[in-house]
Amino acid sequence: MTIPERLEQVRQRMKEEGLDAYYIPTNDFHGSEYVGDYFKTREYISGFTGSAGTVIITAQEAGLWTDGRYFLQAADQLQGTGITLYRSGEEGVPNEKQYLEQLAAQKANPHDFVLGCDGRLVTKAWMQMMAGQFTVRPDLDLVGDIWQDRPARSAEPIWILDEAYAGCTREEKLAKLWKWMEQYHLDQYVLTGLENIAWMFNIRGNDIACTPVALAYAVFTQGGAVLFTDGCADDRVRQVLQQAGVEIQPYEEIENYLQAIAPGCVVAWDMNRINAHLTEQVSKEVRIRPVLDPIDFWKSVKNKVEMDNERMAHQKDAIAIVKMLYWIKTQVGKQPMSELSVAAKLEELRQLDPDYLGPSFTTIAGYAEHGAIVHYSATPETDKALAPDSFLLMDMGAHYYQGTTDITRTIFLGEEASEEEKKYYTAVLRGNLNLGAAKFRNGSSGVTLDILARQPLWEMGCDFNHGTGHGVGYLLNVHEGPNAIRYRIINRPGANVSLQPGMLTSNEPGIYLEGKFGIRLENLILCVEDEKNSFGQFLRFDTLTLVPFDRKAIDPSAMTEREIKLLNDYQKRVYETIAPFLTEQEGAWLEQECAPLEK
Amino acid sequence: MTIPERLEQVRQRMKEEGLDAYYIPTNDFHGSEYVGDYFKTREYISGFTGSAGTVIITAQEAGLWTDGRYFLQAADQLQGTGITLYRSGEEGVPNEKQYLEQLAAQKANPHDFVLGCDGRLVTKAWMQMMAGQFTVRPDLDLVGDIWQDRPARSAEPIWILDEAYAGCTREEKLAKLWKWMEQYHLDQYVLTGLENIAWMFNIRGNDIACTPVALAYAVFTQGGAVLFTDGCADDRVRQVLQQAGVEIQPYEEIENYLQAIAPGCVVAWDMNRINAHLTEQVSKEVRIRPVLDPIDFWKSVKNKVEMDNERMAHQKDAIAIVKMLYWIKTQVGKQPMSELSVAAKLEELRQLDPDYLGPSFTTIAGYAEHGAIVHYSATPETDKALAPDSFLLMDMGAHYYQGTTDITRTIFLGEEASEEEKKYYTAVLRGNLNLGAAKFRNGSSGVTLDILARQPLWEMGCDFNHGTGHGVGYLLNVHEGPNAIRYRIINRPGANVSLQPGMLTSNEPGIYLEGKFGIRLENLILCVEDEKNSFGQFLRFDTLTLVPFDRKAIDPSAMTEREIKLLNDYQKRVYETIAPFLTEQEGAWLEQECAPLEK
Repeated sequence: MTIPERLEQVRQRMKEEGLDAYYIPTNDFHGSEYVGDYFKTREYISGFTGSAGTVIITAQEAGLWTDGRYFLQAADQLQGTGITLYRSGEEGVPNEKQYLEQLAAQKANPHDFVLGCDGRLVTKAWMQMMAGQFTVRPDLDLVGDIWQDRPARSAEPIWILDEAYAGCTREEKLAKLWKWMEQYHLDQYVLTGLENIAWMFNIRGNDIACTPVALAYAVFTQGGAVLFTDGCADDRVRQVLQQAGVEIQPYEEIENYLQAIAPGCVVAWDMNRINAHLTEQVSKEVRIRPVLDPIDFWKSVKNKVEMDNERMAHQKDAIAIVKMLYWIKTQVGKQPMSELSVAAKLEELRQLDPDYLGPSFTTIAGYAEHGAIVHYSATPETDKALAPDSFLLMDMGAHYYQGTTDITRTIFLGEEASEEEKKYYTAVLRGNLNLGAAKFRNGSSGVTLDILARQPLWEMGCDFNHGTGHGVGYLLNVHEGPNAIRYRIINRPGANVSLQPGMLTSNEPGIYLEGKFGIRLENLILCVEDEKNSFGQFLRFDTLTLVPFDRKAIDPSAMTEREIKLLNDYQKRVYETIAPFLTEQEGAWLEQECAPLEK
Repeated sequence: MTIPERLEQVRQRMKEEGLDAYYIPTNDFHGSEYVGDYFKTREYISGFTGSAGTVIITAQEAGLWTDGRYFLQAADQLQGTGITLYRSGEEGVPNEKQYLEQLAAQKANPHDFVLGCDGRLVTKAWMQMMAGQFTVRPDLDLVGDIWQDRPARSAEPIWILDEAYAGCTREEKLAKLWKWMEQYHLDQYVLTGLENIAWMFNIRGNDIACTPVALAYAVFTQGGAVLFTDGCADDRVRQVLQQAGVEIQPYEEIENYLQAIAPGCVVAWDMNRINAHLTEQVSKEVRIRPVLDPIDFWKSVKNKVEMDNERMAHQKDAIAIVKMLYWIKTQVGKQPMSELSVAAKLEELRQLDPDYLGPSFTTIAGYAEHGAIVHYSATPETDKALAPDSFLLMDMGAHYYQGTTDITRTIFLGEEASEEEKKYYTAVLRGNLNLGAAKFRNGSSGVTLDILARQPLWEMGCDFNHGTGHGVGYLLNVHEGPNAIRYRIINRPGANVSLQPGMLTSNEPGIYLEGKFGIRLENLILCVEDEKNSFGQFLRFDTLTLVPFDRKAIDPSAMTEREIKLLNDYQKRVYETIAPFLTEQEGAWLEQECAPLEK
């Protein structure tokens, strides 16, 4: 079926159900950032393959909303589908809600506007907001109705993350959660986020590409826990969980469980996480307590074992990446290579480490103008051959048993970068160095620090259209909250957390010149304690990433003395840490790359 | 009566009323920062004269809560009163609410804990919060009951602020408010903040020292407005207001007015502003809409006329201050001078300008270790003679018809500051210069920018225990929101506004070494538009304050090239703008002061 045919079939179903609009977010039943194939209804109906986007279908129009990372890709993929691209966040572009409001305003009473959706794919908070304005029919999986060869829901085997990696037993985590429930007088706590479930039970899975989690729900009672999953076939896994007092039930049993909760019970969930359908299962006599899921914060603060492990994971990853850089730098122009082949080379090199589990996201390798497409992903159709005359931007992340990495390096292929190329590279580099070297008071948030990374660009009248940093999960989602580094304050509870020792965040300023090139330089930085004195507690970052910056693209005359020292110290540390794991030739090359620069 | 006798009398009244605790905030009926003499119940009962503080009295104890600015002063003034000082924000110190909770926890049911207060001195939001935990009796002015020679409530004449100063007619402002009310379907809007009332009607008064506002309430209806005040005796003032459709009623009539609002009417107010007593006046059938007072934001964005005027006001004030600095610098050690005499000298010099209306706060002049007391205010008892061997910190603000100023300069008296003195002065100066020179994206808030001012100190492991910047009113309160520059995000609606062109904010980093000296350098900075390009709209600041920094305390070797250039450009601008208004001798001195420094 073509996309227009699929849309036509959904419109037919909409007519049967009496809908004015049908809403298709990118989601699974758990609010996951990336979703398994079973859940790719938005991709199926639109042909757009980006990781974020929403489709709204009406009798007259179909629209796709996506953000700045995907404007170019979406415009390309929507060609010929008849779907309108709505560029979220651009001036004059209505967001999804405003769009629906405009349509509803055409009715005599906006409440007569009937909006359909699959209630399992939207949060309770979204549902409440929409139900205040429109008539919502949350019982419709219209794309599922027409999708004949839909993949099965994944139920890959769950595996146990040993304490040597987790640093904290599931018994300790459960005790912490039970104590929290006691404090708020909760009888049951319903947890639906897959990363938080994996963290709580020290389990991992394989139901979502690049995020090693299992499809599951969990409900905690005072002193008990039920894990709803179809991934627990292994006897040893069952045993380990049961020893900790965890009861295991099939994935879909959650509905019966919720329906059976006794009237008067106090049940808590996070309205911004739980799907609307689940909340409909409990009886009206159950007392609901909306809470902010505390596990977001707990898991963002890495323990000592996790921190030490992450240092090791970053060293392992750096070895593979430095080897790859050596290969590219010495072979480009001599043997054929392309965006896809460098990604393949990296995978090959990473696999040399027995602790490597897989990528934490699809490697981005964008040469020249492709580097300006923020979440570019090369395909055989777009794959570009590398030549020695522009920037290659590579954003790469991996999972090891010791933790998760995320690094971007932009390298210049060729003899020497131009003045313009150096100007931008150096500005991005200065931002990265200054943020990484920050010393700051406790109570500071990512908003406090963001300008350190942006200032060199802002002074030039430039900027980048994404956050400076995101939290990073430990063998979980490479993007996790609540820690983040951005310059705008987000008016949402829990969004503006202050940075805590143990939080792992990315530091990734960039610059994107459409049609020319993109530069992004990303390290992961671990928040640690600095001095405490009469003025207060100070914090700083340890930069875990250990891959050199590209001296060919640096203009030291545009840097302060302090910035040059920061750069030279970093390059020296990279060389000293990584060289012992390289061949003689690679080591000699790295030594040159890391040699000190002078103003 | 001594303080202990006053406390005893209040305790007697508490016993009669059956109270467990009595709560005395620093407030008038309008939530003002500074209060008229009639409202100084907290000062009367405690003897503490600082501008901020709360007293709680129980049968066993009386406590005063105040913030870091006042720790030293309060400790001093509370001696012999029997009142315990609670240092707000210090580790392990309960805040007022926690203190009450601890007391209430001793009851079988915390709700049986009876807390008394004067409901006119607390906000509706506070009242709701407290009533959720305790039994609150909001009908008691116990300090008023025992205060025999209490000053009368002020009712000084209101005067009209001409359009040449306000830049916008009251008719335009009313139309804007009515439009806002229409948008939210409000029948009545109750406004109680004195600065916002003064701004709305283009009126000023004289009921609060240093803040030229009148005691008044206002209620807006669709197309109408009622001003409740006893300050409108002048016929011309009445006429001007009535011409704009404003009805004038006596101050206390607000209660009858609110009581008469018809059932079903939609009435709005700001729960964090309106006093609890007023909200009790409307009938239960009135429909209440809690809103954020929009006037906070409107008045913070200065219009073109206000901006141009403020530039002029700052020039006028700089002339007086430069003359004073010349006098101090050339006369110290030759003629007797003290903290109080330099403040008097400044007043004398300011009064030479016919547009000068008075100080916008009590001048702070703190010599040597007095400079380390953040809100030090010299009295005849503490007044210190100036000698040529330490820092003198002066924080000074004025009202002119053209607007309000607020400036701090710290100058070194003597030949040359020591290494240590220069180290700290230079760090504070660098912070001031870097913040003032910021170029930033629209959407940035004060939290985004704060680190520019603090970084030189944070890098040394130092900090200052106050915000970096506050908004400044136009011939209103020298401290106004919502714009502010701080490093912590405040989780309160409306607190984290992004900076807008037209907002006037202070830039005042400092360092305070107890027992040694204090340094603070404060300029007012006006947010203005910078370039707009494909990356977005950029903003920057114009520094309005035009008074030189002290070259004797600067170590250029600790500054970057960029910072030295910023400093030299600023000093040059000061000289060129102010010199034409000085005597030949003063001008020659200023030229030397402003001569370029080199690394």
